[in-house]
Amino acid sequence: MRVSPRLLQRAAKSIDKYALYVPQSGVFPKGFKVGAIASGVKKNGALDLGVIVNTNKSRLSSAAAVFTTNKFKAAPVLASKQVLEAVRGKGINAIVVNSGCANSVTGELGMADANEMVSLVNTQMGGTPNATLVMSTGVIGQRLQMDKITNGINKLFNENRFGAHFEDWLNITKSICTTDTFPKLISSKFKLPNGQEYTLTGMAKGAGMICPNMATLLGFIVTDLPIASTALNKMLHHATNRSFNCISVDGDMSTNDTICMIANGAIETQEVKEDSEAFEQVQEQITQFAQRLAQLVVRDGEGSTKFVTVNVQNSLTFDDAKIIAESISNSMLVKTALYGQDANWGRILCAIGYAKLDNLKSLDESKINVSFIATDDSEPRELKLVVNGVPNLNVDEERASQILALNDLEIKVDLGTGSETAQFWTCDLTREYVTINGDYRS
Amino acid sequence: MRVSPRLLQRAAKSIDKYALYVPQSGVFPKGFKVGAIASGVKKNGALDLGVIVNTNKSRLSSAAAVFTTNKFKAAPVLASKQVLEAVRGKGINAIVVNSGCANSVTGELGMADANEMVSLVNTQMGGTPNATLVMSTGVIGQRLQMDKITNGINKLFNENRFGAHFEDWLNITKSICTTDTFPKLISSKFKLPNGQEYTLTGMAKGAGMICPNMATLLGFIVTDLPIASTALNKMLHHATNRSFNCISVDGDMSTNDTICMIANGAIETQEVKEDSEAFEQVQEQITQFAQRLAQLVVRDGEGSTKFVTVNVQNSLTFDDAKIIAESISNSMLVKTALYGQDANWGRILCAIGYAKLDNLKSLDESKINVSFIATDDSEPRELKLVVNGVPNLNVDEERASQILALNDLEIKVDLGTGSETAQFWTCDLTREYVTINGDYRS
Repeated sequence: MRVSPRLLQRAAKSIDKYALYVPQSGVFPKGFKVGAIASGVKKNGALDLGVIVNTNKSRLSSAAAVFTTNKFKAAPVLASKQVLEAVRGKGINAIVVNSGCANSVTGELGMADANEMVSLVNTQMGGTPNATLVMSTGVIGQRLQMDKITNGINKLFNENRFGAHFEDWLNITKSICTTDTFPKLISSKFKLPNGQEYTLTGMAKGAGMICPNMATLLGFIVTDLPIASTALNKMLHHATNRSFNCISVDGDMSTNDTICMIANGAIETQEVKEDSEAFEQVQEQITQFAQRLAQLVVRDGEGSTKFVTVNVQNSLTFDDAKIIAESISNSMLVKTALYGQDANWGRILCAIGYAKLDNLKSLDESKINVSFIATDDSEPRELKLVVNGVPNLNVDEERASQILALNDLEIKVDLGTGSETAQFWTCDLTREYVTINGDYRS
Repeated sequence: MRVSPRLLQRAAKSIDKYALYVPQSGVFPKGFKVGAIASGVKKNGALDLGVIVNTNKSRLSSAAAVFTTNKFKAAPVLASKQVLEAVRGKGINAIVVNSGCANSVTGELGMADANEMVSLVNTQMGGTPNATLVMSTGVIGQRLQMDKITNGINKLFNENRFGAHFEDWLNITKSICTTDTFPKLISSKFKLPNGQEYTLTGMAKGAGMICPNMATLLGFIVTDLPIASTALNKMLHHATNRSFNCISVDGDMSTNDTICMIANGAIETQEVKEDSEAFEQVQEQITQFAQRLAQLVVRDGEGSTKFVTVNVQNSLTFDDAKIIAESISNSMLVKTALYGQDANWGRILCAIGYAKLDNLKSLDESKINVSFIATDDSEPRELKLVVNGVPNLNVDEERASQILALNDLEIKVDLGTGSETAQFWTCDLTREYVTINGDYRS
């Protein structure tokens, strides 16, 4: 394979991101072990198959997932949906995931392969059916090499290649990467209102779009907190709606996108239910955790040089705040202006103006305020571009240049029509993005 | 002003497009004259102000327009809407248009300026109110320099700088250009069912997005055919829905986008009404004419190297065919793959899958066919990528490379769920696009 100078440059750049965003240690929930292996599906011999196992037997686990809304759903998405529905989110004890082949647009044979992955893990776990979720990412339109996958799964279990140390969690995170320049692994301890501690660990893979892959997004969150399956399902949808569904690299959505979560209840405390005191607090903790994980995907956006928070405030409705944040975040003109470090309020207003709102009253042209916000400690933090619908024609250009030169910055839009807020995270559109997605053939 | 080597390269490229797409002569409808002048609003002394005048007094003219749906509408859009509504599309005898300043996000003062442009022309034309439409394109958030505009309009009339020759039409077309690399002017003669000839002339300006401009699209069509104003309105909406609303450069929509049409009835023939024999035929002729004009805008897409027709066939509904064609046309991954000359059916399926359909039955994964079509005479014309939902894994890579190397090509999607067809026209996303929109500051 010919490696272009640009890809080498990109590889060199990725070292910085690795140092910045990959932890050296972590905290991991009780009652989980993980294993990863190089099955041979990835041609370069890298890790490409992983299994997360719940070892806690004291309670039945809860699981939930949010799947792609793309009409073309990959076989593993359909298989995992079936499993989750069959057991109503209860008793899921494993997630098996492979990279290198997305098992998408593979028809009935692909469905059989996805189901076979589930069966192989179920068998290794003791034979209970519907206890395993399956995910795949990589090339689409190709069958899985089931001999390699089968050998890999059996080897993981038969040689007991599972562990619960930092390196084990880092390795399984690496095994789901495709074009990611760094593995996305985070973990934190949280407290319940009663003082009880619990742990969240999350892994994600980002929007890797090198031909003929698509921008598959996978995210896993595991916790040792006991959460009722209906409550978990509600929390994960809430969190995903405010995290993984609020990021924009290029606006495309793949056939394989999946965010899933298992709560195994390995710590001894009262189960969190929808009507329990802890529900709101845990939901908020999971949401913020999911945001951190989702933001790492944007930081690894292909070719990107900037991480931009689009903060739409004081909207009549949350949905409209989000629609406007999304419209700005996906606008090619806004994204190229960010790359060009140009305080282009016109492009931002334009993207706001063509957003397809649910309620036209969310937007009042005479009330809108648009600013850039510096994310470092420099002052003034806020640079006003549009004030009550009127462009600020005396923008301090020098200050604008300073803020736009930052790697991290915020676009604040105050709609002034209500009190709802939504955030999106986006990156700039660069020549490098076009190079990666246009020049490369696998 | 520093001129970058890239912009010079682009200027050099534009010479080819000029030779290819700018006519050397034309046919023009009876009873119209046009004038253009350099008012001084454009700093480089180029033509920036034009007026189209209807000189036919034998009938009351009909006019219709389709305006931007952006929530932020520029003052000239609001002013023209008011004029058209006041006279219900009857008796419009002039269009005044300026480039260099879009008179957008300029509040009440901007409205007064737009109305003043209308008044100035009305006065010069004899004093009838509501007889002039106004359009502006260029920088947003700045007031029009009304002294220059006023002088320009008065000079055009007082020195009678109007004419009806090819050069006059070419000059007014040039006067609406901003970042366009060539003026977009077309004209043709057509026949009615009864053999009567009539003429259509069209001018457009394209998606020029250099900071802080936005992608303003302006289009004018004039004809000497008598068409009832209600019929004209219906025809223009039909045509725009199948032409200017079916092009994608970057998916952004400006505050100033306007397509308008005047039919002055200068030829002696029966007026075309909604229930007349000629209606369908004229509507189809205008639609095809508008498509030719709209396609020129895509051909001048910033930084683009390819002109791609996205042809979605056999859909259950027209709307869904169009939604799918639009989703493919706007996908950054599809557009970069086209630039990279990559037969990436996965990205096309992906964009189809996330299109927000009105009727889910329009898309059946097992019936979909996707092909690339060569637009030259080479064989085989059709390269099948997906057949009845199954990817063709034995694609002739050599033939794929040949087709993808063409400047013009077609993506054909056969949904197999009905009989409706929609087309979109798009261009590739190139490094040059990012350069133009990211690096340049005015």
